[in-house]
Amino acid sequence: MPDKWSVKPSLIARSTFNPIRDIVDNLKIEPNPSKEFIPLSLGDPTVFGNLGPAQEAVDAVIKSAASYGHNGYTASTGNMKAREAVAQYSSTDEYTVKPEDVIICSGCSGALDLCITALANPGDTILVPRPGFSIYRTQAEGLGIKIRSYNLLPSKGWEIDLINLENQLEKYKCAAIVINNPSNPCGSNYSILHLRDIVNTISRYHVPIIADEIYEHLVFPGEKFHPLASVSADVPILSCSGLTKRFLCPGWRLGWIVIHDRHDIFGKEMRTGLQNLSTRIIGANTIVQGALPDILAKVPEEFFDNVIDTLQKHAKVAYDLLSQTKGIKPVMPQGAMYMMVGVDIDHFPDFSSDLEFVEKMVGEESVFCLPGKCFDYPSYFRIVLTVPEHLLKEACQRIRSFCNKYYDEDKKMNEINMNTYNNINTQTYT
Amino acid sequence: MPDKWSVKPSLIARSTFNPIRDIVDNLKIEPNPSKEFIPLSLGDPTVFGNLGPAQEAVDAVIKSAASYGHNGYTASTGNMKAREAVAQYSSTDEYTVKPEDVIICSGCSGALDLCITALANPGDTILVPRPGFSIYRTQAEGLGIKIRSYNLLPSKGWEIDLINLENQLEKYKCAAIVINNPSNPCGSNYSILHLRDIVNTISRYHVPIIADEIYEHLVFPGEKFHPLASVSADVPILSCSGLTKRFLCPGWRLGWIVIHDRHDIFGKEMRTGLQNLSTRIIGANTIVQGALPDILAKVPEEFFDNVIDTLQKHAKVAYDLLSQTKGIKPVMPQGAMYMMVGVDIDHFPDFSSDLEFVEKMVGEESVFCLPGKCFDYPSYFRIVLTVPEHLLKEACQRIRSFCNKYYDEDKKMNEINMNTYNNINTQTYT
Repeated sequence: MPDKWSVKPSLIARSTFNPIRDIVDNLKIEPNPSKEFIPLSLGDPTVFGNLGPAQEAVDAVIKSAASYGHNGYTASTGNMKAREAVAQYSSTDEYTVKPEDVIICSGCSGALDLCITALANPGDTILVPRPGFSIYRTQAEGLGIKIRSYNLLPSKGWEIDLINLENQLEKYKCAAIVINNPSNPCGSNYSILHLRDIVNTISRYHVPIIADEIYEHLVFPGEKFHPLASVSADVPILSCSGLTKRFLCPGWRLGWIVIHDRHDIFGKEMRTGLQNLSTRIIGANTIVQGALPDILAKVPEEFFDNVIDTLQKHAKVAYDLLSQTKGIKPVMPQGAMYMMVGVDIDHFPDFSSDLEFVEKMVGEESVFCLPGKCFDYPSYFRIVLTVPEHLLKEACQRIRSFCNKYYDEDKKMNEINMNTYNNINTQTYT
Repeated sequence: MPDKWSVKPSLIARSTFNPIRDIVDNLKIEPNPSKEFIPLSLGDPTVFGNLGPAQEAVDAVIKSAASYGHNGYTASTGNMKAREAVAQYSSTDEYTVKPEDVIICSGCSGALDLCITALANPGDTILVPRPGFSIYRTQAEGLGIKIRSYNLLPSKGWEIDLINLENQLEKYKCAAIVINNPSNPCGSNYSILHLRDIVNTISRYHVPIIADEIYEHLVFPGEKFHPLASVSADVPILSCSGLTKRFLCPGWRLGWIVIHDRHDIFGKEMRTGLQNLSTRIIGANTIVQGALPDILAKVPEEFFDNVIDTLQKHAKVAYDLLSQTKGIKPVMPQGAMYMMVGVDIDHFPDFSSDLEFVEKMVGEESVFCLPGKCFDYPSYFRIVLTVPEHLLKEACQRIRSFCNKYYDEDKKMNEINMNTYNNINTQTYT
C-alpha cells in the first residue's frame, strides 16, 4: 500500500500532444496595440462570421431537434438513415458505397482517431505527409505509434515526392499511410494521374491507406476532386470526411469513415475492430445525425459554389499581394482553405527562423500566421483564406511592409530551392 | 517489404470489447410471435416515447442552432460558458466548483474514457463495482488496463462490501477506483455515512476515484443524492456526469468531468493530461454546448419531479408483482432507472444459468431482461423502469407466469444468500 499520494497522468495522457499548441504557446504573440489584430492562423472558417453553414443545414438540425425523434442512443456506428445518406453522398460513377461500409464518428478527428487506433499498434509506424496537419501525430504518438513523414513538393503544387515516398516505404514497415487531399496546410488538389501513381506505389508495399478527405469537393473552379478510392486498385482505404469544412460547421462534430475494401483485405475483422472502438464513446450527436440526410440532400450547389468562389477570390488576392513581395513566395492553392508561403530566411538576417519571423510580425504588424514548424515544415508560414476579404487584404499589405522593412537588399535573392529544403528536412526529421 | 496483403486490427481494436453485446449476441433472442415483444433490457429511457427531454431543453438547442453562434470549434475542453454553467450546476453548499475544473466531453462515456485513459497505464489495475456497468471494462481492457472488482451487497441495498473493498485494495495496487452512485444496474443511492466510509477506506490506500455520477439527483422522494466529492477528504476525485440520464437525452452526447482536487494531488500535470486527451476528438457538439447554460438553468424542477415520480411508481409496480413471485427476488431501488432481480436458479431445474433463464423467457413470454452476467453478476437479471407502465405491468405479469411455470415446488425455497453469491463470485472472477 503506498503510504502517500502520488498520482501521475498516464503515458497516453502525457504523449498525446498537439505540436501546434506547444509551438504557439511558446511564441510571444503580442500584437501591436496600435493595429487591429488579424489572426490568419485560425482553421475555423466560421470564426469571423463571414462564412457559416447553409440555412438548409441549420434548418435540418432545428427540424431534427423539434421532432423529438433523435434524442436517444443510436448504434455507436451511427443511425442507419445517416449511414445510408453518407453512402449515397460518397458514391461515385465508379463505385457504390454501402451503408454498412459507413461509420458515423464524432467529427473527422474522431474518424481519424478510430482509423489510426484500429490500424496500428504501439511501436508501429504510420507515414504522414510533410508538410501535414498535426492531428495525425497527436493521435498516433499518444498511443505510442511512431510517425514518419514523406515529402510534398511545393514546386509541383505540393504533389507527393514519389521517390521519397518509396524510400520511406522501403525503409519503414508501415502499418498505414495517411494521404491528405485536398491538403491542409497546402491547399493542393491532386490530379487523377498523381493519385494513381500514389496508389500504385503504395500497393507494391501492401500498406493500407487512411485518406483524410475532409476537404473533399472544396476545390477551385476548373479543378476536380477525385476521391482516392476511385483509383484504389487493390489497396484498402479508410476514407475520412464529414460536415466540418465543406458544410462550414466544425463544432457539430459530425464525421464519418467510409470503408473501401473491394479486395476484402480488411475483411470482417477490421470492421469488427472499428465497431469495437466506436463503442468507447458511443458515436456522434444524434440530433445532427437525424438531420444528416436532409443536410446532404438539401444544401444547394449554390452554397458550395459561393464558398468556393470566396476562397478562390481570397487566394488570388493574397497570392497577388504576396507574390510581389520580396523574400517570400506564396504557393497558389487549388482548393481547401489555406495557402503556404515560403520565407527565404537567409534574406532576413534579423530572424534566425520562421518562428522568430512570425513572432516579430505579430509584434509589429498584428498579423499572426502559423509558422511552418507547426506542419513540420520550417521556412514557411500558413495563412487561412477564410477571413473577410478586406481583412485579408489589409493583412497581406502589412506582411508586405514587414518584409520590405526587414529584407536584406544586399543579398542576392535566390530562387527558393525546394529540393534543398526537402533534403534538409529529411535529414533533420526522419 | 511484405509481398502480400496482411492487415489486422490493432490490439486495442481487438481488446475493446463490450461484454453486453457479446453476451446478448450469443443469446437466442426469439420472441414468441403470439405475444408483443417487451424489451426490459434497453438502457435508453427515450426509446418507448413515454420519456424524453424537457421542452425547455429542446427549445434551448433550437435557439442555439438558430443563433448561428455555435457552429465553430470551441476549446477541446468545452466552451467557457458551458463550463461555467456546469461549475455552477455542480457546486454545493459544501464546495464551489470552478469553471477551469470542468471538462466538457462527448457524453458521459467520453468523460469516463478520458478519466480511465488519463489515470491508468497498460498493465495497471482499476477497481470497479460488481455488479457494475460494463463500459469501464470496455474502455479499460481495450487499453490493456486490468479490471478487478469489489462487491456490492444486495442485502444492504447494494452498499459496497467494505471488507471486500479493503481486501481488494490491499491485494492490488490500483491506479484508480470507480464508484458508481446512483448505480446502474442496481438503482441504489448511498447514504452520506456510507460514502464517508468508502472514501475513508480508499484514502488509506491513496487511490484516486472516478465517480460515475451520471444518475446524480435521479433518486426517489425521501432519498437525497450526495456527490462523492462532498465527503472527499483528501482523495482526489474525477466526477463524471452529463445530460444523458437526468435530462433524458442520451443521444446528445453531452457529458462532463468535474475535477475535485482540494489537496492538489492531481495538480497541474493531471489537468494537462486530461486536456491533452481531449484534443484527440476535439470535444462535444457545440450546438448543445451553446444550449447548456439554458438547459441547466431553465428545465424546471417539475420536469425532474415527474420523471422521478414515474420511475418510483414503476419501481413499485414491478417490485410488488415480482416480490410475490416464486423463485425470484427483486431488490427495491432508491433511484436511477433499474431494478435487479435475483433468480434462485436451484429452484429452476430446467435452466442451468441466468442466461438460459432469460433466453427461455424471451422465447415464451417475449420479455427480454439483461442477464446478470452482463454486469458480472450471475443469478440476477436487470429490468429497466423506463418502459410505459402498462407494458411494465404486462411484462412483470408474464415474468410471474414464467416463474410459476418453471419453479420446482418440490424443493424448499431458500432465502437467496447473497454472501454465498459474493464468495462464489470472488473465487470465480477475481
